[in-house]
Amino acid sequence: MREVAVIGIGQTKIDEHWDKSLRDLAGNAVLDAVKDAGLNQIDALYVGNMMSASANHQAQLGAYIADWVGLRYAESFKVESACSSGAAAFRTALLAVASGAIDQAVAVGVEKMTDSPGAEITAELATAADSDWEVTQGISFVALNALIMRRYLYEYGWTKNDFAPFSINAHANGAHNPNARFRKAITEAQYLDAGMIADPINLMDASPIGDGAAAVVMVPLEKIGLSSANPIVKIIGSAAATDSIAVHDRKDPLWLKAAELSAKKAYSQAGIGPQDIDLFELHDAFSIMAALSLEASGFAERGKGPRLGLDGEIRPDGRIPIATRGGLKARGHPVGATGMYQLVEVVQQLRHQANGTQVEKARIGMAQNIGGSGSNIITHILQRV
Amino acid sequence: MREVAVIGIGQTKIDEHWDKSLRDLAGNAVLDAVKDAGLNQIDALYVGNMMSASANHQAQLGAYIADWVGLRYAESFKVESACSSGAAAFRTALLAVASGAIDQAVAVGVEKMTDSPGAEITAELATAADSDWEVTQGISFVALNALIMRRYLYEYGWTKNDFAPFSINAHANGAHNPNARFRKAITEAQYLDAGMIADPINLMDASPIGDGAAAVVMVPLEKIGLSSANPIVKIIGSAAATDSIAVHDRKDPLWLKAAELSAKKAYSQAGIGPQDIDLFELHDAFSIMAALSLEASGFAERGKGPRLGLDGEIRPDGRIPIATRGGLKARGHPVGATGMYQLVEVVQQLRHQANGTQVEKARIGMAQNIGGSGSNIITHILQRV
Repeated sequence: MREVAVIGIGQTKIDEHWDKSLRDLAGNAVLDAVKDAGLNQIDALYVGNMMSASANHQAQLGAYIADWVGLRYAESFKVESACSSGAAAFRTALLAVASGAIDQAVAVGVEKMTDSPGAEITAELATAADSDWEVTQGISFVALNALIMRRYLYEYGWTKNDFAPFSINAHANGAHNPNARFRKAITEAQYLDAGMIADPINLMDASPIGDGAAAVVMVPLEKIGLSSANPIVKIIGSAAATDSIAVHDRKDPLWLKAAELSAKKAYSQAGIGPQDIDLFELHDAFSIMAALSLEASGFAERGKGPRLGLDGEIRPDGRIPIATRGGLKARGHPVGATGMYQLVEVVQQLRHQANGTQVEKARIGMAQNIGGSGSNIITHILQRV
Repeated sequence: MREVAVIGIGQTKIDEHWDKSLRDLAGNAVLDAVKDAGLNQIDALYVGNMMSASANHQAQLGAYIADWVGLRYAESFKVESACSSGAAAFRTALLAVASGAIDQAVAVGVEKMTDSPGAEITAELATAADSDWEVTQGISFVALNALIMRRYLYEYGWTKNDFAPFSINAHANGAHNPNARFRKAITEAQYLDAGMIADPINLMDASPIGDGAAAVVMVPLEKIGLSSANPIVKIIGSAAATDSIAVHDRKDPLWLKAAELSAKKAYSQAGIGPQDIDLFELHDAFSIMAALSLEASGFAERGKGPRLGLDGEIRPDGRIPIATRGGLKARGHPVGATGMYQLVEVVQQLRHQANGTQVEKARIGMAQNIGGSGSNIITHILQRV
């Protein structure tokens, strides 16, 4: 298995891009990444996306985007695992390059959600849950997360307000990220005053949808020339795991088993542990998910995730910085693109290009992308060479 | 890059399965393939599917199916390239095993189409075309193929009836396949009398939709025990290529450039040429596509595809047998599953288990799966060890 490095990154601002098509968004991110890599040939393009067939009446994103960016005839297809589609595309590109079949691969995550009415998007997001046993009961994604959070508060004795630091940290960091959907820090009072969406989840616990795309270029480590303009970042851990798609089917709905399994496997591949991670781009679609992800990945004991926030350990200067470029909460959550944004941001940190929220001397970064309510979780660990 | 073999196959009959869910169908094919392989552990499951999010209100098929077949916690996600999603999932599994990251992989293609009204399915199929430049003009997939076929007749001087052998051969072969949607041979008179759908495509030129699933189990060749119950079939060529998604954007709409490119690459990997192929499961979604696929893959000169049919060369005892188990025309075309059916059928032929339509002494077989109107084409070559 060849070692693989990321040598190019690109992203669009996450926004309501009513003037840009799906291919404009994906194309801009891909072309920026290819330019950043300084390559003039790409062999394959893997696309992470969740809902284009319904939200944009366009399937077949591989051929659709490849041609648009000048890669007509290149291998290209789409990879989907709901909100972890971005990391799944990254992993597909990694396996293709690691196998030796492909030398220069691009992975791009793209989603265009804001053209669709809210009720439609809510229904489309619900296709990530179990259609037979969850969705037919009228459940939505925020409702599923509210049920999990309510149980968490009951089991471990936290109050809703103990989750405020996750949102406050994300927005503080997002203010420094020109590609973030929201670039404004919030106060604790604003968190406490936010309108309730699905009790105990309020507006400041929930990440916003958006339109956007992020991309990387990957090559075998052995083929990188000495002239590379940017610091080289290699992939030292990559693992994916699933869990039951329906939350009620899990032995413990408060434990992200797929996060634990994929993180442990990635740590083992990298030969490191959680103590070696300098920053962690986790999947804070709802603040409860930030806590569960920290626990299952080995950064906090079971039921103790909110403690890290209250102690300031999740800030860029803390023990385990998270959402360093705004996270899903402030950077935004264009679902099938999110995993690629996380990975692009980890590369920015490891290159020491994370202006305003740079984690000092960052050398090893982790990204964890969650599909569904924890049913498909993909963990990657990257290291500055 | 490790050599990879297929050691298990499974499939459901293609039909209107109103009593079976998407997971029943996929589950049955996967469990049959795992049983056929004689394995008790699977590391990863890759799902080929086009339209489950819209037709079945279910995305996230990886977690959805993995849990159902007893693979909770295994790596799993979906791969999509419209009607070539099946072969794309097969290729993803191949790359994962070839890379060394995964030891035992399952690829499954599944589609459940007949619950949806016809108009909805027509719209969902059209998402494989260019939404901006084809679909907004009111084009459907059969209309696109009719335009291509009409041009072909004009350019090369064939009549519509010269395409009859493609349909007659497919139905004759499908009569022997217990998993085929249609198991009845047709006469030339029946072809000639068939109702017109989109001139010059009549009912007997067009493949039927359906519900179904097909699966394979792959392992590294080096890890196969001597006790394997079935003849071993290894993958000696695998390549994917794209073309413009819109037909009008191509320099020559009568030439499947992506078929040519992927076939040539696969031949080169295998160190063989078209003359070495004992059977060819091609993508006869419409009979014009059978002709174009034969030409671009090197079996007929440009504009001469129908000649092979008229001369009887496409029958199981001919020079290049195609649609040996009924093809898309008679076996059926559950879009995202079709590529996996083709590959399962090639394995059946190479194992000499193709009762009724066995190609004598078959040793090397090829499968070619087409997404969109030729915009994404994946070619695989398999060899009996």
